[in-house]
Parts: sequence; C-alpha cells; structure tokens
Amino acid sequence: MPIAKGPQVFPRSEYLRRLAAVKTEMRRLEIEVLVIGNSSDITYLTGYTARSGYVPQALVISLNEEEPTFLLRRQDAPAAVHQTFLERGKVFGYPETLIGNPDRDGFDAVIDFLHELGAADRGVGVQLGYLSAKSARKFESRLPNARIVDCSHSVAWIRMIKSDFEITLMREAAAIADAGVSKAAEVIRPGVREADVMAEVAAQLARGANGKAGTDLASMYFCSSPRTGTCHIRWSEDVIHPGSQINLEVGGVRHGYVSAIMRTFSVGAPSDRLRRLHEAEVAGLEAALATVRPGSTCSDVANAFYRTIEKSGFHKDSRCGYAIGIDWSEPTASLKDGDMTELKPNMTFHLMLGNWIEEDFGYVISETFRVTDSGCEVLTKSPRELFEV
Amino acid sequence: MPIAKGPQVFPRSEYLRRLAAVKTEMRRLEIEVLVIGNSSDITYLTGYTARSGYVPQALVISLNEEEPTFLLRRQDAPAAVHQTFLERGKVFGYPETLIGNPDRDGFDAVIDFLHELGAADRGVGVQLGYLSAKSARKFESRLPNARIVDCSHSVAWIRMIKSDFEITLMREAAAIADAGVSKAAEVIRPGVREADVMAEVAAQLARGANGKAGTDLASMYFCSSPRTGTCHIRWSEDVIHPGSQINLEVGGVRHGYVSAIMRTFSVGAPSDRLRRLHEAEVAGLEAALATVRPGSTCSDVANAFYRTIEKSGFHKDSRCGYAIGIDWSEPTASLKDGDMTELKPNMTFHLMLGNWIEEDFGYVISETFRVTDSGCEVLTKSPRELFEV
Repeated sequence: MPIAKGPQVFPRSEYLRRLAAVKTEMRRLEIEVLVIGNSSDITYLTGYTARSGYVPQALVISLNEEEPTFLLRRQDAPAAVHQTFLERGKVFGYPETLIGNPDRDGFDAVIDFLHELGAADRGVGVQLGYLSAKSARKFESRLPNARIVDCSHSVAWIRMIKSDFEITLMREAAAIADAGVSKAAEVIRPGVREADVMAEVAAQLARGANGKAGTDLASMYFCSSPRTGTCHIRWSEDVIHPGSQINLEVGGVRHGYVSAIMRTFSVGAPSDRLRRLHEAEVAGLEAALATVRPGSTCSDVANAFYRTIEKSGFHKDSRCGYAIGIDWSEPTASLKDGDMTELKPNMTFHLMLGNWIEEDFGYVISETFRVTDSGCEVLTKSPRELFEV
Repeated sequence: MPIAKGPQVFPRSEYLRRLAAVKTEMRRLEIEVLVIGNSSDITYLTGYTARSGYVPQALVISLNEEEPTFLLRRQDAPAAVHQTFLERGKVFGYPETLIGNPDRDGFDAVIDFLHELGAADRGVGVQLGYLSAKSARKFESRLPNARIVDCSHSVAWIRMIKSDFEITLMREAAAIADAGVSKAAEVIRPGVREADVMAEVAAQLARGANGKAGTDLASMYFCSSPRTGTCHIRWSEDVIHPGSQINLEVGGVRHGYVSAIMRTFSVGAPSDRLRRLHEAEVAGLEAALATVRPGSTCSDVANAFYRTIEKSGFHKDSRCGYAIGIDWSEPTASLKDGDMTELKPNMTFHLMLGNWIEEDFGYVISETFRVTDSGCEVLTKSPRELFEV
C-alpha cells in the first residue's frame, strides 16, 4: 500500500518560496540544473529529516520544473514520500543493488537521471565542497559535455535569513536547549557518573519543553576537569568530583532546526580565576549582543566581545560564533574579525563564546540569537550564571 | 598548564600493531605518507573519539616515523593529547584563523606539514572517497610532484578483523544495545508520546549496562505505523496508538565501538501477516547464523537468509548487513549475494534483516555477531521476539 503523507511542518507555499530563491540564484549562475546532496539543504528544500544521507542521495532542481526530484535509496523512498511536500512522482528510489557496490552507486542513478532530463550538455550545479573527490570525478567523466559549476554553499546562503515559520521552530528548539541546561543543573552532583548526567540531559532534550518534543538529539558535550580545555568530548567514564568544573554544550532540535547553548558549572565554589573569566565573558556577551542590529557586521559583533574581555586581561583566539539553523552550524557567516557579512532581520547565530585558554582550562557560555528589525532577540533564556552546584 | 593523559582504552602495543598493519599496506601501495581524514580510522589508529571532524583534521602516517602526527584545530588539540596514545609532540593544533576562512583551511596546514616532512615529491595516500572534491583539488594543486594514491578504505579493511580488546568493547556495547531494547519494551505503551519512549531509551543507552556506561549515543530509529515501511526516521511527534507496530533500531557505544540491534514491537496482537513475516525472518536469521564460520563467504550468509524466507513467500531486496565496528557500519564487506569476502575469526557484522516490503509495511530484526574460530558468537542477546506490549 502507498504510504500516507505525514503532517507537514511548513505549508507548500513556504517550500515554493525557498525554491524560487534557489532558482533565481541558478539563473544568476547560468545553470539549468542543480544537484543538492547536502542533507541540511535537502531538509530546507523538502522537509525531509530522515537520516539516510550516509549513502548517496540528491535533490535535483531544474529550472523547467516547479518541484525538484528527490533521488534516494529505494528503502528510504517511503520516508521521503511521507515527510516531504513533494508529489510522490517526484520521489525516485534507486535500486538496493547500488548499496555496498564498488562499481556503481546511487550517484550513477542521479547521473542517469540528469541524462534523461536532457541536462547532460547544460550548466549543472553540484556541491564540490560536499561531494567526495571520487564522486565528483564520476560526475565529470559521465557528463563530459556539461558545464559543471560549484554550488557548495548556494543554498546555505539562502537559508541564512529565516522565515517566521522557521523562527518559531528555533524558539521552540531554544526552549528545549534551556530545559537541557536546567536538567544538568539539577543532576550534576559530586559522585554522580558523567554518563548518568548526560542520560538525564539527553532524555530531557528528547522530551522537549512546553509540550513540544525534541525531534532529534543534536551533538552534546560535557567537558569536565581536567578536560575543561577541550571542547568536543561527549563525556567521560568518570564520576563528578568535588571542586570540578563542567563545560556543557547542548542543542534542542525541532524538525531539523537547532538552537544551541553553552553554560559552565562549578561543583562547589569556583576559583577566583574562573569567576573573573565568567564575569569578563558575560560582559563581553552583553557587549556583543548590544551591537546586533541590521546593518552591523559579523565583525562588529565579534570585536565588541574581544575588546570587552581584553579589558579584563583575557583573550579568545577563536571565532565568536556562526550562523545556525538546520543541523546546527551553517557554512556561511562567522562572528569573527574581518567577516563583513551584514546582519539582516531573521538571521540567526550561535554566539559561541567558548574560550579554551590553556590546555587544561577553558570556560563556555553561548546564546542563540535572532537579528530583529531593530536589534536582537536572544532565543535561549537560561540565566547567564556560572552554575554552582 | 599541559593537559594530563586520560585513561587509555588500549595499550600502546595495540596501536603500534594496527599502525604496523597500515604501514605494510603503505609499502605495498608504494606510498611513503598516508593522510587519514576519516574520523573512524583516526579513532582506530589513535584512540581519539572527540567529535571535531566537522572541520578539517588529518592523521599523517609516515613510513619513517613510529608514531603518526595528528593535525587538528588548535582548540581540539588538548582533547587529542588527552585521549590518544600519541606523544604530545605528535599532536599539532593549527590556528583558529583557518576556521570559517574561505581562502585557507586546515588542509592547508596538513599540506604545509607534508612539505616539511619532505613528502611533496613522494607517493602520498589520501582518502578520495571522503575528502571533498574541493579539498582533493587543493592536495593536487599544492603537491604537483607527489604521486597521489587513493587509499579511501585501506584502513577500513584492516579494521575488519578485531583484536580481542576490541571484541570486549563490542560485547559491552551489545549489552547496552540489549538494555535499550528492554527499556523500549518497558515503556512502549498506548498513549505515550514517541519522544518520551526515545527519551527513556536514549537515557538507557547513555547509562549503559553491567556497570559499563555508554560513551556516546549512536543513531536511533523508531518507525511506527504508518511509517513501518521507512527505516531512518528518528521518531515522530505522534503518540503510540493501540494496534500500532514499531520498528526500533538502536546501538550501544563503547569508546567508539558500536553494536547494533533491531527489534519489532506490536501494540496489542500482531496481524497474521506480521506474525508470519516475523517467523520467516527468525528462521532466516537462524539459517544465516548457522552458515557463519571461517571460510564461508558473506554471500553464503546472505543467501541462507534469502532462501529461507523465500520458502514462506517473502523476499528482501536489500543486503543482509555489513561489517560493523567503530561508528557503526564499515565501508568494506556486505552480507549480500555475490560478496565473496571470506569470513575470518573476529570479523564482526551487523546481520541486518530489516525488510521494508511495502511503502507502508516493514519489519525489522537484527543481531551483531562475531565470527569465531569455528562458528559464530552472537553479541546481542535480546529475545528474538515480536514484542507484544
């Protein structure tokens, strides 16, 4: 039996608006067809959030068709029919024989489709920043007459300015991230295993907040003493010790959209150094947020932070954040010195002020914010505390 | 202050043994240097499990050096010092200015290092199956005199035969996966939100089993009616309905190593069709396991399954599984017709018998097994039931 369409997160008009923006960019680049393999871009353009992107799949957008065609593994095609706004005729499942096959894979099916579409001698956009070198060579050798154009981040730049529909999901995701922080504050106690803390935090991130469930679990990090100078360790097998510090990073997820937050915890009274760093970073965070408005640049935001913490004798050598949306970070603007991207209403950023100062000492705080018509809406709402537990 | 070495999961001799096998392969391929970017391969060769692979990083193995050099983002270098067996001089943190920088990225630092190493005119192995086309072009243009050899899966093939140390971790991971299935059987009830079920399951997978914590959360899927014909949907926003079927896939994780399991749940009595499919699949699973011994092929295992379920009038069009280990599936052998890979002791597979028969109807069962000297050890131990809840 055919699978039924699932509840749609966005109206069809929202997807057509997004596709129209992509097609405008395609015309500018003089390409007739665009092959999108990046999972986050596919989520954006169709509503698909199933996790099948570990094998080849591609959304093929043609200037001559209103809806794109989604080619993916046969076994994942029902999920695409169910989740996306696409007509079922626009979902094409390629044979399972192309899986674990060293000679032909799903991209061969995609290239066959480009030939059928009559695009083999046209301008074809592909994502050379995501496509493996091996797969890119396949496109080049099997489409020798096409003019292949790199469009790695074309959709990502369009994703940067969110619609109000998307902002609603990011607010919900932010509330979930905040609930993760509250849960951590409740369960971090001396003698508790780190894994048991993260069990509770992960459960909270799935349960969600305000009646809105988390729809996935984003990456989460719990970097405790002596690992506070690290940033991407899930958690360790240790128990929590009196006097330890914990740097937590979590994200809430709503239908692909992520809002992220970082907070630092101290088991017992923090050291003077940690307290001073926390105060400098909160001042820096507030200074950075105060610069956020349409017309400011990413560089302005970062420099407001850098200049503020320097007054207290601190320094951060990494960027102050990045555009955020589907599947966490977007590969577009960074909040860093010299990034002259101009802020516009409904851009969203993770103002990520994690500061790993020495190999064995770091501190984290962050917020997810939206640029408004006149300033800034901070989506995450957790207290800007150094949580003492 | 320098960060201390963390507890080591494997002895140094284990890593040197793995590296010796890689170097033997490098000599065969006549390459002097091998650049490994794949995160699972890096875990295998160093013990690093932090999740920093979303920006460039590479382990550079030279025939002239006992230990490889790990180049990664400055901010992640302390995690590499802490987690890996490498001497600290073998961890190189490249500047944060290479992050979010359209002109130069971490691979430029890797290529600079290859020049310093004197490898610029030698045989250099890279992973063209993982490196993006853009990054591969950078290697080619900045190493014009090197002989670049594709080594995408060279380390993966070596990973296939596990040591007893690795098997111990996979047994622990399997017990965690089993605990996830038990937890699901306990909490799947009509009226409960799917997200709340997966909150409990995720928490269990983090808490672990038998006093061994989960060290990460692997992918998890909860595909309920009317989505039992899909396979990679995390979960939906729905509640569980009387009469629904649920296809669950979870994995336990121990220090990067994953054991996976799938089981099907029926809320109330299953349909006759589901019951018949379950019985056919269990018989097929047992027939497949009965063929597992050194000298059998992957094809033999798959065909034992296919022939058995065909007797009951069923058919599965996808492969019957794949090599499993670090970060779930390994890109080497598949349990499929025609894959003549010979089974050897301590190879591990996910015998994945998910069978998505119609768009709206599928069933799942799987086990993670190890090839022994004379047969098969099934690592996952959950009852082979169609769980009625």
